Amino acid sequence: MYVILSYDVDANRTQIFKKISERFLHRVQNSVFEGYITESKLIQLSSSIKENLKDDESVLIWKLESEKDLKKLVYGKIEEYNFL
Amino acid sequence: MYVILSYDVDANRTQIFKKISERFLHRVQNSVFEGYITESKLIQLSSSIKENLKDDESVLIWKLESEKDLKKLVYGKIEEYNFL
Repeated sequence: MYVILSYDVDANRTQIFKKISERFLHRVQNSVFEGYITESKLIQLSSSIKENLKDDESVLIWKLESEKDLKKLVYGKIEEYNFL
Repeated sequence: MYVILSYDVDANRTQIFKKISERFLHRVQNSVFEGYITESKLIQLSSSIKENLKDDESVLIWKLESEKDLKKLVYGKIEEYNFL
Protein backbone atom coordinates (compact mmCIF):
# COMPACT_ATOMS: atom_id res chain seq x y z
CA MET A 1 0.00 0.00 0.00
CA TYR A 2 0.99 3.66 -0.28
CA VAL A 3 1.18 5.93 2.78
CA ILE A 4 1.72 9.55 3.69
CA LEU A 5 3.07 10.17 7.19
CA SER A 6 3.20 13.46 9.05
CA TYR A 7 4.48 14.12 12.57
CA ASP A 8 3.93 17.05 14.89
CA VAL A 9 6.30 16.63 17.83
CA ASP A 10 8.40 18.74 20.21
CA ALA A 11 11.09 20.65 18.32
CA ASN A 12 13.90 18.91 20.22
CA ARG A 13 12.50 15.45 19.41
CA THR A 14 12.08 15.68 15.63
CA GLN A 15 15.25 13.64 15.02
CA ILE A 16 13.72 10.61 16.75
CA PHE A 17 10.77 10.58 14.37
CA LYS A 18 12.88 11.47 11.36
CA LYS A 19 15.04 8.40 12.03
CA ILE A 20 12.05 6.11 12.52
CA SER A 21 10.24 7.37 9.41
CA GLU A 22 13.20 7.32 7.04
CA ARG A 23 13.79 3.64 7.78
CA PHE A 24 10.56 2.97 5.87
CA LEU A 25 9.64 5.98 3.73
CA HIS A 26 10.97 8.86 1.60
CA ARG A 27 11.21 12.30 3.13
CA VAL A 28 9.33 14.99 1.20
CA GLN A 29 9.16 17.79 3.75
CA ASN A 30 10.71 18.40 7.17
CA SER A 31 8.12 16.28 8.96
CA VAL A 32 6.34 14.57 6.06
CA PHE A 33 7.22 11.22 4.48
CA GLU A 34 5.72 9.11 1.70
CA GLY A 35 6.11 5.78 0.03
CA TYR A 36 5.01 2.23 -0.63
CA ILE A 37 5.13 -0.03 2.41
CA THR A 38 4.06 -3.57 3.24
CA GLU A 39 1.54 -4.33 5.96
CA SER A 40 4.23 -5.92 8.14
CA LYS A 41 6.59 -2.94 7.77
CA LEU A 42 3.71 -0.61 8.60
CA ILE A 43 3.14 -2.55 11.81
CA GLN A 44 6.83 -2.09 12.70
CA LEU A 45 6.63 1.62 11.87
CA SER A 46 3.44 2.12 13.93
CA SER A 47 4.96 0.23 16.83
CA SER A 48 8.09 2.46 16.85
CA ILE A 49 5.90 5.54 16.72
CA LYS A 50 3.76 4.43 19.66
CA GLU A 51 6.83 3.58 21.74
CA ASN A 52 8.28 7.06 21.28
CA LEU A 53 5.28 9.40 21.11
CA LYS A 54 4.45 11.70 24.02
CA ASP A 55 0.89 12.67 24.94
CA ASP A 56 1.02 16.16 23.46
CA GLU A 57 2.50 14.99 20.15
CA SER A 58 0.85 13.40 17.13
CA VAL A 59 1.59 11.28 14.10
CA LEU A 60 -0.86 10.85 11.23
CA ILE A 61 -0.65 8.13 8.61
CA TRP A 62 -2.95 8.14 5.57
CA LYS A 63 -3.15 4.74 3.87
CA LEU A 64 -4.12 4.19 0.23
CA GLU A 65 -4.25 1.20 -2.06
CA SER A 66 -1.97 2.85 -4.58
CA GLU A 67 -0.24 6.14 -5.34
CA LYS A 68 -2.44 6.18 -8.47
CA ASP A 69 -5.44 7.14 -6.32
CA LEU A 70 -3.67 10.43 -5.57
CA LYS A 71 -2.86 13.47 -7.59
CA LYS A 72 -0.06 15.55 -6.08
CA LEU A 73 0.33 19.28 -6.43
CA VAL A 74 3.81 20.45 -5.50
CA TYR A 75 4.55 24.12 -4.84
CA GLY A 76 8.12 25.17 -4.14
CA LYS A 77 11.11 22.90 -3.96
CA ILE A 78 10.82 19.28 -2.83
CA GLU A 79 14.23 17.82 -3.53
CA GLU A 80 13.30 14.29 -2.56
CA TYR A 81 10.60 14.10 -5.20
CA ASN A 82 13.36 13.42 -7.72
CA PHE A 83 13.73 9.98 -6.23
CA LEU A 84 10.08 8.96 -6.06
CA MET B 1 -12.69 16.18 -3.97
CA TYR B 2 -10.77 15.52 -0.75
CA VAL B 3 -7.34 17.00 -0.09
CA ILE B 4 -4.50 16.84 2.41
CA LEU B 5 -2.27 19.91 2.53
CA SER B 6 1.09 20.23 4.24
CA TYR B 7 3.40 23.25 4.36
CA ASP B 8 7.07 23.54 5.21
CA VAL B 9 7.88 27.24 5.51
CA ASP B 10 10.10 29.58 7.53
CA ALA B 11 9.17 29.50 11.22
CA ASN B 12 8.27 33.19 11.24
CA ARG B 13 5.94 32.79 8.26
CA THR B 14 3.76 29.89 9.38
CA GLN B 15 0.87 32.22 10.29
CA ILE B 16 0.54 33.34 6.66
CA PHE B 17 0.00 29.75 5.50
CA LYS B 18 -2.15 28.85 8.49
CA LYS B 19 -4.51 31.70 7.61
CA ILE B 20 -4.65 30.78 3.92
CA SER B 21 -5.22 27.06 4.62
CA GLU B 22 -7.85 27.45 7.31
CA ARG B 23 -10.02 29.50 4.98
CA PHE B 24 -10.58 26.27 3.03
CA LEU B 25 -9.66 23.25 5.19
CA HIS B 26 -9.59 21.81 8.72
CA ARG B 27 -6.37 21.93 10.68
CA VAL B 28 -5.19 18.53 11.92
CA GLN B 29 -1.59 19.26 12.86
CA ASN B 30 0.50 22.42 13.14
CA SER B 31 1.19 22.56 9.41
CA VAL B 32 -1.24 19.95 8.05
CA PHE B 33 -4.82 20.51 6.90
CA GLU B 34 -7.51 18.29 5.40
CA GLY B 35 -10.97 18.48 3.95
CA TYR B 36 -13.37 18.40 1.05
CA ILE B 37 -12.94 21.24 -1.41
CA THR B 38 -14.39 22.21 -4.78
CA GLU B 39 -12.20 22.61 -7.85
CA SER B 40 -12.78 26.38 -7.88
CA LYS B 41 -11.88 26.76 -4.20
CA LEU B 42 -8.76 24.68 -4.79
CA ILE B 43 -7.74 27.09 -7.55
CA GLN B 44 -8.16 29.99 -5.09
CA LEU B 45 -6.16 28.13 -2.46
CA SER B 46 -3.34 27.26 -4.89
CA SER B 47 -3.24 30.81 -6.13
CA SER B 48 -2.86 32.22 -2.59
CA ILE B 49 -0.11 29.69 -1.89
CA LYS B 50 1.83 30.62 -5.03
CA GLU B 51 1.55 34.33 -4.27
CA ASN B 52 3.05 33.89 -0.82
CA LEU B 53 5.57 31.05 -1.13
CA LYS B 54 9.30 31.75 -1.11
CA ASP B 55 11.82 29.68 -3.11
CA ASP B 56 13.13 27.68 -0.16
CA GLU B 57 9.65 26.80 1.12
CA SER B 58 7.20 24.15 -0.04
CA VAL B 59 3.53 23.24 0.02
CA LEU B 60 2.23 19.81 -0.92
CA ILE B 61 -1.39 19.02 -1.75
CA TRP B 62 -2.56 15.45 -2.24
CA LYS B 63 -5.88 15.23 -4.10
CA LEU B 64 -8.28 12.29 -3.90
CA GLU B 65 -11.73 11.60 -5.26
CA SER B 66 -13.08 10.90 -1.80
CA GLU B 67 -12.02 10.54 1.81
CA LYS B 68 -13.25 6.93 1.46
CA ASP B 69 -10.15 6.07 -0.58
CA LEU B 70 -8.07 6.72 2.56
CA LYS B 71 -7.67 4.94 5.83
CA LYS B 72 -6.28 7.18 8.55
CA LEU B 73 -4.16 6.04 11.45
CA VAL B 74 -4.01 8.62 14.22
CA TYR B 75 -1.39 8.40 16.97
CA GLY B 76 -1.51 10.92 19.80
CA LYS B 77 -3.98 13.71 20.17
CA ILE B 78 -5.52 15.46 17.18
CA GLU B 79 -8.13 17.74 18.67
CA GLU B 80 -9.53 18.90 15.35
CA TYR B 81 -10.48 15.35 14.37
CA ASN B 82 -13.51 15.72 16.61
CA PHE B 83 -15.00 18.09 14.06
CA LEU B 84 -14.38 16.08 10.92
